[in-house]
Amino acid sequence: MTELRGVCVISLTPFDTDGAVDLPSLANLLEFYIKAGVHGVTLLGIMGEANRLTEAERDQVVQATMETVAGRVPVIVGCSAAGTHQAVTYVKRAAAAGVDAVMVAPPNQIRQLDLVVDHFERVGAASDLPLVVQDEPVTTGVVLPPSFFEQVVTRVPTACAVKVEESPTLPKISRIREVTGDRLTLFGGLGGMYFFEELERGAAGIMTGFAYPDLLVAIYEAHQKGDKAAARSLFYQYLPLIRYEAQLGVTGVAIRKLAYKARGAIASAYVRPPAPTVDRRTLRELVDIAQHLGLTDLEEARL
Amino acid sequence: MTELRGVCVISLTPFDTDGAVDLPSLANLLEFYIKAGVHGVTLLGIMGEANRLTEAERDQVVQATMETVAGRVPVIVGCSAAGTHQAVTYVKRAAAAGVDAVMVAPPNQIRQLDLVVDHFERVGAASDLPLVVQDEPVTTGVVLPPSFFEQVVTRVPTACAVKVEESPTLPKISRIREVTGDRLTLFGGLGGMYFFEELERGAAGIMTGFAYPDLLVAIYEAHQKGDKAAARSLFYQYLPLIRYEAQLGVTGVAIRKLAYKARGAIASAYVRPPAPTVDRRTLRELVDIAQHLGLTDLEEARL
Amino acid sequence: MTELRGVCVISLTPFDTDGAVDLPSLANLLEFYIKAGVHGVTLLGIMGEANRLTEAERDQVVQATMETVAGRVPVIVGCSAAGTHQAVTYVKRAAAAGVDAVMVAPPNQIRQLDLVVDHFERVGAASDLPLVVQDEPVTTGVVLPPSFFEQVVTRVPTACAVKVEESPTLPKISRIREVTGDRLTLFGGLGGMYFFEELERGAAGIMTGFAYPDLLVAIYEAHQKGDKAAARSLFYQYLPLIRYEAQLGVTGVAIRKLAYKARGAIASAYVRPPAPTVDRRTLRELVDIAQHLGLTDLEEARL
Amino acid sequence: MTELRGVCVISLTPFDTDGAVDLPSLANLLEFYIKAGVHGVTLLGIMGEANRLTEAERDQVVQATMETVAGRVPVIVGCSAAGTHQAVTYVKRAAAAGVDAVMVAPPNQIRQLDLVVDHFERVGAASDLPLVVQDEPVTTGVVLPPSFFEQVVTRVPTACAVKVEESPTLPKISRIREVTGDRLTLFGGLGGMYFFEELERGAAGIMTGFAYPDLLVAIYEAHQKGDKAAARSLFYQYLPLIRYEAQLGVTGVAIRKLAYKARGAIASAYVRPPAPTVDRRTLRELVDIAQHLGLTDLEEARL
Repeated sequence: MTELRGVCVISLTPFDTDGAVDLPSLANLLEFYIKAGVHGVTLLGIMGEANRLTEAERDQVVQATMETVAGRVPVIVGCSAAGTHQAVTYVKRAAAAGVDAVMVAPPNQIRQLDLVVDHFERVGAASDLPLVVQDEPVTTGVVLPPSFFEQVVTRVPTACAVKVEESPTLPKISRIREVTGDRLTLFGGLGGMYFFEELERGAAGIMTGFAYPDLLVAIYEAHQKGDKAAARSLFYQYLPLIRYEAQLGVTGVAIRKLAYKARGAIASAYVRPPAPTVDRRTLRELVDIAQHLGLTDLEEARL
Repeated sequence: MTELRGVCVISLTPFDTDGAVDLPSLANLLEFYIKAGVHGVTLLGIMGEANRLTEAERDQVVQATMETVAGRVPVIVGCSAAGTHQAVTYVKRAAAAGVDAVMVAPPNQIRQLDLVVDHFERVGAASDLPLVVQDEPVTTGVVLPPSFFEQVVTRVPTACAVKVEESPTLPKISRIREVTGDRLTLFGGLGGMYFFEELERGAAGIMTGFAYPDLLVAIYEAHQKGDKAAARSLFYQYLPLIRYEAQLGVTGVAIRKLAYKARGAIASAYVRPPAPTVDRRTLRELVDIAQHLGLTDLEEARL
Repeated sequence: MTELRGVCVISLTPFDTDGAVDLPSLANLLEFYIKAGVHGVTLLGIMGEANRLTEAERDQVVQATMETVAGRVPVIVGCSAAGTHQAVTYVKRAAAAGVDAVMVAPPNQIRQLDLVVDHFERVGAASDLPLVVQDEPVTTGVVLPPSFFEQVVTRVPTACAVKVEESPTLPKISRIREVTGDRLTLFGGLGGMYFFEELERGAAGIMTGFAYPDLLVAIYEAHQKGDKAAARSLFYQYLPLIRYEAQLGVTGVAIRKLAYKARGAIASAYVRPPAPTVDRRTLRELVDIAQHLGLTDLEEARL
Repeated sequence: MTELRGVCVISLTPFDTDGAVDLPSLANLLEFYIKAGVHGVTLLGIMGEANRLTEAERDQVVQATMETVAGRVPVIVGCSAAGTHQAVTYVKRAAAAGVDAVMVAPPNQIRQLDLVVDHFERVGAASDLPLVVQDEPVTTGVVLPPSFFEQVVTRVPTACAVKVEESPTLPKISRIREVTGDRLTLFGGLGGMYFFEELERGAAGIMTGFAYPDLLVAIYEAHQKGDKAAARSLFYQYLPLIRYEAQLGVTGVAIRKLAYKARGAIASAYVRPPAPTVDRRTLRELVDIAQHLGLTDLEEARL
């Protein structure tokens, strides 16, 4: 079983200016991620506009990714759905495509936790793939207490990890570890805002769509080598940018697409509607911060 | 263009005991509806567990329905989706299948109303089909003020009706009429709880999954003939049952499937997970009320 | 210890046309309730606009009520607050005024249930008065699972009852009884919409602000005498009115004040702002339904 | 009329270990703020646990503050309430105590904006004091669009400022300025996370309970002098701490009280229940970050 750890970037789904899936840009973007040193690629998450894709487009994205990545890093595929039946279908298709792991969030607004555990049990049983539980209460409306993860450990043998997105992540990470020990690998989130402290509390890495995964990789590698001072120093250095991008929360896909476009990784920053637009001033502030930090590949001229 | 009016029942999607779409039961159910005198059938709404179906299953349900109904009553198809792109795809497939109208709710949690109007504009432009706007704030999280419908009238030429589900429906119906006049046909909801008053306030009918559409048809027909006293009398007579079933809100699909099974219309009451179950006592209360009202076709033995 | 049971009407707080507390109207209203046969009076609930009163006004209302009621029926006082400290203060003042019981809801938006149990433990310990737990998730945002009531039974010796307002109330009543047995008295709610079935499931009564407590008293008394057929018959008879009034949910205080004014019980229907107004048509519908049911004391001329 | 600008710290309300208001600590804390260079003090906000205080305690806090501050900086008093009547009462008492301005948020969960404007109109008319509109949708559940502020400008002559707390604050600040010009002074929020950019977008200052107001003062003063590079440099330097503290959101009062206790400003970190506790690890991380930044007055031994 593939070990998941490090910076598992949550991939964008690039579209062309008419809104169709742009496979050449996807291939470029994946090479960009790999060159940035990421340790894994997570497809079809919120940042991948998964809930705006048709089923055929989902398959297209997964297959094209498997071909481009070609085993260089693990590929995790988001399989969240409103119903168990669909999530099972998504998992089976991902397994057939040869992916390395799947990630599933609780179905939106299902607050009876016994039903949520049932969901994970059935979805987990749909394949042999390692399953990452996505703990994302802002989007799902479902708050998962530590006791929930105890049940997951017992009832979902394929569960391998938790991506923690509930804010604040730090006490949540500690509490899940208290009840599940080392049984579940933990990933941080929130755009990297607490990455250094997440690692210090025992997270094995992070899953985020932050537009500079290379910076997170540098922080992670330093921390892995045991050089905490360097990890902290890099983290503090890039915090102005991490923080700036994180402000837009779940609507942040637009600004991230713009950033990747400005970095030359994708051809168009098209976001599927309904989606709010980013004001010009926000773009200028982003470019200004990046340049101030010496990150010169973000070219406003590309925007 | 087909005129929509009267009782446009929101159809269940029957499954077999393994959870697969049960097409023979769907055919039976549609005949049951038509025999009950409904004036239209609405597919793939919340009661149709639309968000628990794969795209292939959606197509299957629509095509089987078109064959069975064969033009006897209009067929309206729910095309709500998280993104504009999918909703447009759903509308195009519905149009290709020859349906009579489509129904679309605001994408969940999109509270910027200008984005919601844009969504309806694009979805409306995807076909020539009449479009019913579904005003369902409990599920979508989107509250639509009267001014929203003014914009719909201006920007969505195919918009023909509003299904009002916001509680209380009565003042909402009056306020939409104040701003849009007769331009939009109005349908009531809330399981029929305010059906008589909705008609009195100018609604042209109702869309609901209530398990006794025949009773609503009787009320509607009396009202249409101008016999308001009879309409009111029938309404008051059946209110204990209407009210009882309405208590379960969006989780009401389970009790409705059980009621239709007890009436012999479908073979299994299977609801796709995650879904709460109905306790035995609730079933007994339901049977008891129906029998007390002289509705004898609901057989507990079938449950 | 006073036994709480039957129809414990949730009292309005009458204001004059300038918005000041109207004590003569309060006295009239209390006499009206008692003449209607209520078995208890609940002050300072949501219908009493408790969260719109100053502390001095709270005291005024409680003291005036104790003088007027003069022991004829038990008086329960709402003591809900955002913080434990205030709730404790409210309970102590209520105890000093000689009331019979207090009612407390979870502090708004406190979703960590261990903190909510702590709150009830401290508030319960603030006096010897019986404590009614108000289970009102629409207003508080706090959903109380059956296991919560197990904890209440263990940790709050003065807890005597639960006012169930979570919809649907029927399965909730059954589930609380399953885990707490007869230790807690249960009261129904939802404006009386499921009163007959609530009684059948073991509720000892109801707490509601419904403007015709006399009708609920008739239903309750018939049920108490063991004449379930009569109880059901009365309940079905008055359901059109019960249902109509219930549609306005938490904004229903305006329509209830209008109804009590039309019945001659209070001088003004003033509701403290911010509060939505009731449209004329709603008033006419209300009067029409009441008259149709032979309830002739509701005079439109008084409105 | 006093001009409001700069760092208007949102004051804590110190309690002793039994939970009673600790007036000596309040006096110390106010001196601490003033020594830190704050340009104003805001009492009875969320950080001041205003909704956990009795009315008498409110008065106590306001009066003690007026005596201690003695005109050295303006004092703004939070007067938010569930009802207009109470808010008016609070404003009148604040005016009688001689405060410099009042701050009012929309009543919780009142989403009909016409009612919210009415509320501000009446509350504004209750005194001659400048009124700060608090735009705090996480707590109130009320989202205020730019058009709302146009109405405020027209209908509330005493409205002088907006404290922007909706995330992201930056586009919100720009949009309010677009529609209201210079008519309303704007204050940033979110614990200082976007303070530099807020100033750049035209904010006149910030209102926050961040435990190091001295750092915000330094940033503000540099920016005021026109030395943007220095302002940015200081801001980036202290961002690790600002960010760390901001993670706890509305539950952050506990960590802030702990920080002020560790800095020697208050005697006890008691927070009125119900309130979650801060885990030991969080405290250690906080101390560690502060010390790493050379902020040596935060002594873990005091905790």
